[in-house]
Amino acid sequence: MKKIAIIGATGYTGSELVRLLTHHPQVEIVLITSETHQGKRFSDIHPQFKGICDIELQSAEKTGEYQPDLVFLALPHGVSMEYVKKWQDHPFKIIDLSGDFRLSDPRVYSEWYHQEHSYPGGFQKAVFGLPELYREQIRNSRLTANPGCFPTGAILAAYPLLKEGMVDARRLIFDSKTGVTGAGVKPKLVTHYPNVGDNFKPYGIQKHRHTIEIQETLAFSSGREVTVQFTPHLLPVDRGILTSLYALPVKKISRKHLEQIYKTYYQNEYFIRLRQEAPQIKHVRGTNYTDLSVFYDRRTDNIMVFTALDNLVKGAAGQAIQNMNIMMGLEEKTALELIPLMP
Amino acid sequence: MKKIAIIGATGYTGSELVRLLTHHPQVEIVLITSETHQGKRFSDIHPQFKGICDIELQSAEKTGEYQPDLVFLALPHGVSMEYVKKWQDHPFKIIDLSGDFRLSDPRVYSEWYHQEHSYPGGFQKAVFGLPELYREQIRNSRLTANPGCFPTGAILAAYPLLKEGMVDARRLIFDSKTGVTGAGVKPKLVTHYPNVGDNFKPYGIQKHRHTIEIQETLAFSSGREVTVQFTPHLLPVDRGILTSLYALPVKKISRKHLEQIYKTYYQNEYFIRLRQEAPQIKHVRGTNYTDLSVFYDRRTDNIMVFTALDNLVKGAAGQAIQNMNIMMGLEEKTALELIPLMP
Amino acid sequence: MKKIAIIGATGYTGSELVRLLTHHPQVEIVLITSETHQGKRFSDIHPQFKGICDIELQSAEKTGEYQPDLVFLALPHGVSMEYVKKWQDHPFKIIDLSGDFRLSDPRVYSEWYHQEHSYPGGFQKAVFGLPELYREQIRNSRLTANPGCFPTGAILAAYPLLKEGMVDARRLIFDSKTGVTGAGVKPKLVTHYPNVGDNFKPYGIQKHRHTIEIQETLAFSSGREVTVQFTPHLLPVDRGILTSLYALPVKKISRKHLEQIYKTYYQNEYFIRLRQEAPQIKHVRGTNYTDLSVFYDRRTDNIMVFTALDNLVKGAAGQAIQNMNIMMGLEEKTALELIPLMP
Amino acid sequence: MKKIAIIGATGYTGSELVRLLTHHPQVEIVLITSETHQGKRFSDIHPQFKGICDIELQSAEKTGEYQPDLVFLALPHGVSMEYVKKWQDHPFKIIDLSGDFRLSDPRVYSEWYHQEHSYPGGFQKAVFGLPELYREQIRNSRLTANPGCFPTGAILAAYPLLKEGMVDARRLIFDSKTGVTGAGVKPKLVTHYPNVGDNFKPYGIQKHRHTIEIQETLAFSSGREVTVQFTPHLLPVDRGILTSLYALPVKKISRKHLEQIYKTYYQNEYFIRLRQEAPQIKHVRGTNYTDLSVFYDRRTDNIMVFTALDNLVKGAAGQAIQNMNIMMGLEEKTALELIPLMP
Repeated sequence: MKKIAIIGATGYTGSELVRLLTHHPQVEIVLITSETHQGKRFSDIHPQFKGICDIELQSAEKTGEYQPDLVFLALPHGVSMEYVKKWQDHPFKIIDLSGDFRLSDPRVYSEWYHQEHSYPGGFQKAVFGLPELYREQIRNSRLTANPGCFPTGAILAAYPLLKEGMVDARRLIFDSKTGVTGAGVKPKLVTHYPNVGDNFKPYGIQKHRHTIEIQETLAFSSGREVTVQFTPHLLPVDRGILTSLYALPVKKISRKHLEQIYKTYYQNEYFIRLRQEAPQIKHVRGTNYTDLSVFYDRRTDNIMVFTALDNLVKGAAGQAIQNMNIMMGLEEKTALELIPLMP
Repeated sequence: MKKIAIIGATGYTGSELVRLLTHHPQVEIVLITSETHQGKRFSDIHPQFKGICDIELQSAEKTGEYQPDLVFLALPHGVSMEYVKKWQDHPFKIIDLSGDFRLSDPRVYSEWYHQEHSYPGGFQKAVFGLPELYREQIRNSRLTANPGCFPTGAILAAYPLLKEGMVDARRLIFDSKTGVTGAGVKPKLVTHYPNVGDNFKPYGIQKHRHTIEIQETLAFSSGREVTVQFTPHLLPVDRGILTSLYALPVKKISRKHLEQIYKTYYQNEYFIRLRQEAPQIKHVRGTNYTDLSVFYDRRTDNIMVFTALDNLVKGAAGQAIQNMNIMMGLEEKTALELIPLMP
Repeated sequence: MKKIAIIGATGYTGSELVRLLTHHPQVEIVLITSETHQGKRFSDIHPQFKGICDIELQSAEKTGEYQPDLVFLALPHGVSMEYVKKWQDHPFKIIDLSGDFRLSDPRVYSEWYHQEHSYPGGFQKAVFGLPELYREQIRNSRLTANPGCFPTGAILAAYPLLKEGMVDARRLIFDSKTGVTGAGVKPKLVTHYPNVGDNFKPYGIQKHRHTIEIQETLAFSSGREVTVQFTPHLLPVDRGILTSLYALPVKKISRKHLEQIYKTYYQNEYFIRLRQEAPQIKHVRGTNYTDLSVFYDRRTDNIMVFTALDNLVKGAAGQAIQNMNIMMGLEEKTALELIPLMP
Repeated sequence: MKKIAIIGATGYTGSELVRLLTHHPQVEIVLITSETHQGKRFSDIHPQFKGICDIELQSAEKTGEYQPDLVFLALPHGVSMEYVKKWQDHPFKIIDLSGDFRLSDPRVYSEWYHQEHSYPGGFQKAVFGLPELYREQIRNSRLTANPGCFPTGAILAAYPLLKEGMVDARRLIFDSKTGVTGAGVKPKLVTHYPNVGDNFKPYGIQKHRHTIEIQETLAFSSGREVTVQFTPHLLPVDRGILTSLYALPVKKISRKHLEQIYKTYYQNEYFIRLRQEAPQIKHVRGTNYTDLSVFYDRRTDNIMVFTALDNLVKGAAGQAIQNMNIMMGLEEKTALELIPLMP
């Protein structure tokens, strides 16, 4: 049994990691940490886990003592980098679920995150943990930057089009809609029930941090100059992101041809389900799937790609475990053959 | 007191018309019809109206006897045209809330609605009832085609940009999100609670009928050739449409300049509220407002316009009453100074 | 025009008062206060009011200068009593929407509210503002304690039964279910969207403060010793309270007889709608109605009464305006002939 | 591997059975039937199963050919009894998820279900499949009547109190609140999204069929005469039932003593979680747990018990699999160690 530590127990990514790892046959959670709640049980903070995970929370200071093989950082950005820095010479592997090591360099980071990066050296070491694009690099990675929730759905939607040079890379429009859990476990005005229920709105227009993560990753993976317009909107649901991509073809195209391209890229990807009909977020709820459909409108000459995923699973904890499996030489889908909770 | 008849009592547009007309000081509802429920009270079908509107439902056959000044057709498309045809020589004015007379000609109609039109002559007489564009024509209209819910928000978003020649008219992308009431009062799989709650999906991709209504109206009103990509998505809320418009500028532009243009067009429009921050559907719930914000992203050179409205009010019954007020020479906002129900 | 001041602008009762008073033809809001937001406009705090109420917020210190005829206190309990005390010799009338003056004496208050009362003298002056029970006293009141949201629905359900001596007064069970706005405008864990959506739970078991308000009011109004079991539950909706009352008859009874009793008490009450079928919270949304049905199960010998109301209207701001109309000698339902927003 | 057939693929209990059985290591689904959809794949009807269960649907006529060891009937009541009758001499065991064999005799059945029973002989053979009460009988059963969703939560709440003679058995009040999936997969007015969202109401007052199922089971299991008042209410959520039981003690009691009693009955029951704080439906979502808390209010002398369960799992398919495991001699919790999806 491989030993796993989860740093940061109180958030949704922390509780999702526990939900998914509990039935993993080859790993064991040896440590869950919380600085504010140490001494309490995990199920005191997340009462749904009563009888399932009653492990006592420890300080992250004790991590070394537990000799973990791999550590998940389920921490806010800005905090995560401190642990990565501190633990750079430790023998365990790290998967960081924050945004601290997903971008190309510290300068871009501080431009979009509005703070200095305290561990610039980490950028060289970190691998962007999107297995469908970077499986081989992840296999050998010791520090994996787990992708953001929006970027996962956006990048998977656009990557084959860009890689094949089918579309104008400077005119990519991602109109995304997300559930509330993306805003975290802490009550805020924006997550106050009466402000969300029966409501819908765009937010972070022009300046959401995931914009640059999408743009850089698409540029590096396709070798093209890419410009991304990314607009998130807030849905009155807990989980799920649906992304609508609009792109302009630069060649003659047909829907059939497009479907063929996506099939070439993704038919062997267990976690991507290509669909004829439009995807729905409830069809992937609680799972590591990304459902994807592609359309071509001859009348307007637009390509449209839609992806649906669960922001806490393929958009966070599930993908992190997928990365863990790869990094540890385990079967990639272990503990991730989940079935959607529908309805 | 002007006499009003409402043809079709059972749907949401019918009940919204009654909700809004009840407090109108210059008109009186003399007749509400339903073929299937005649003899029952309106409040038997819509129990929330108990003690407010207990009028007995009649057959539409009796309309002439009540000598109405104006008749609202709150009927499905295909049914509406039959009444307009039958009543073409009646003295009362008609506001048709269906899609039967919104397009340019019968050929376009049958192409998008997949049925023959039984009253082609009506197209010449009908005025497209969007007061912010066609107030003067509406004033003299005897047959007003009340706009669709999506077209209202989409057209108001794009019209100033097209009229001023600011954007590429062939590359307009409308990504719209609507509440469930748009699908009507009748239970279907698509409106079954477990299929909607916690869910979100696009639908009608490439072929939704409102596409052509948006495109034709923008073309006629701006005098340009317009191509519209319109994609509706289904929100787990009752009411509200948020439309996100993406357009490519053809001139040098700034946000300030754009805001100035929208101010020029809309600052005297009582029902359009220009906002700095992004609009939210709950901020207009139950009202005839359209909230609108415009953005320009210098980094990507994209213009983005967002509109929010209540699909049953500005998107249907409220706009119909706005048209009624204009057609009858009444103060346009009578009975429409509504305050959003928030939360 | 009577002059009205609203003390406390930021909460939901404050914004509901403004929503409902805006169209009142005989009163004028001359002042809205907020200590934390003074200088901002009301519509900055509640953006749905843009163009409707853009009045500048003032400190409550300035209240005297505006010479209001009546003041609404839309403040938390504990804060309200300070203003009532300070303003006891002012000429204006006061309607207090908090729980500070609803109980019989300071001792009971501190037992259930776990704090000392700073103005014990106020209890003698305050009238419990439930017009259906205390209309005459309210007419002459200078300090009206507006009832709690749960107590309004619970008391209206049980009062005729107790007054007529039909039931065992020591065995009243009120199982109530409320929307989230009852918890206020401030984000908390309990109102965090992911903790409320798709969820349902009882809370405040045995010790909710409204228990004693229901019990005392029923005891005083019926002249009996009353014991109340009250259990609130939290619904994933914004507005609405449904209360299910279970009572044991002490006489031979029939449903017909029960309906006759409720008719006797309530048929002239505009805001109470007696129904045959069970009430629904959406049928009263946004209005001052209480919908009520009574049942008798011969098989079990239980009486069941169900009431539905909007906690922010009949349960707070609407009832406050009903009280205001009575206290000022205006027609009681002025500005309150509201139509439910359904759907 | 034991062979399993599921008769009736289209409903929610059918799809939940597949969701839960997919990962069962000792059984194999050899047949799923649908008369209306035969020839289609299971994932055509339930698209969330794409790539997970794409088995072709057959007619139930073919059941014998597949030589199943056990058959689940996921059919409406009235239909189920026909299959039980027809298959009475077949070698396979049957678990019936409908209400057709849960009551004591055909006369009671027709009184509450308003139809004649076509297989009266089945009542003698059927075991009521609530393992916490009837585990030993289930072990030897060849026909198990899987309990209703409401009865499961109600019976588990009251059973220890009645068995121990703690309460007045003629005065049991069950106030239950359920998610929408209890109303089935077929669109109806009552499940139309705009009629459920933001709404809440009681229904089936005095006459819901689960009343008699609760009452009979509690009477038989405790050996007392029992009278049950049961009132269901409809929640705007997909899944979950919360039941609030109010009972009158007939002895001196304390909360501590009550908790001791429940511990005695349930501490070895894996699927019952005793809690200090009130249960919440989201804490058991997607799982076979019943969360339970008991309270005693000394002030009013009332006992209150609250249970929360997922109506599609412990209230239907999960309990059916629990029964299957028992009937087949497998470890009872196999495939049922599920973790709540929260949020």
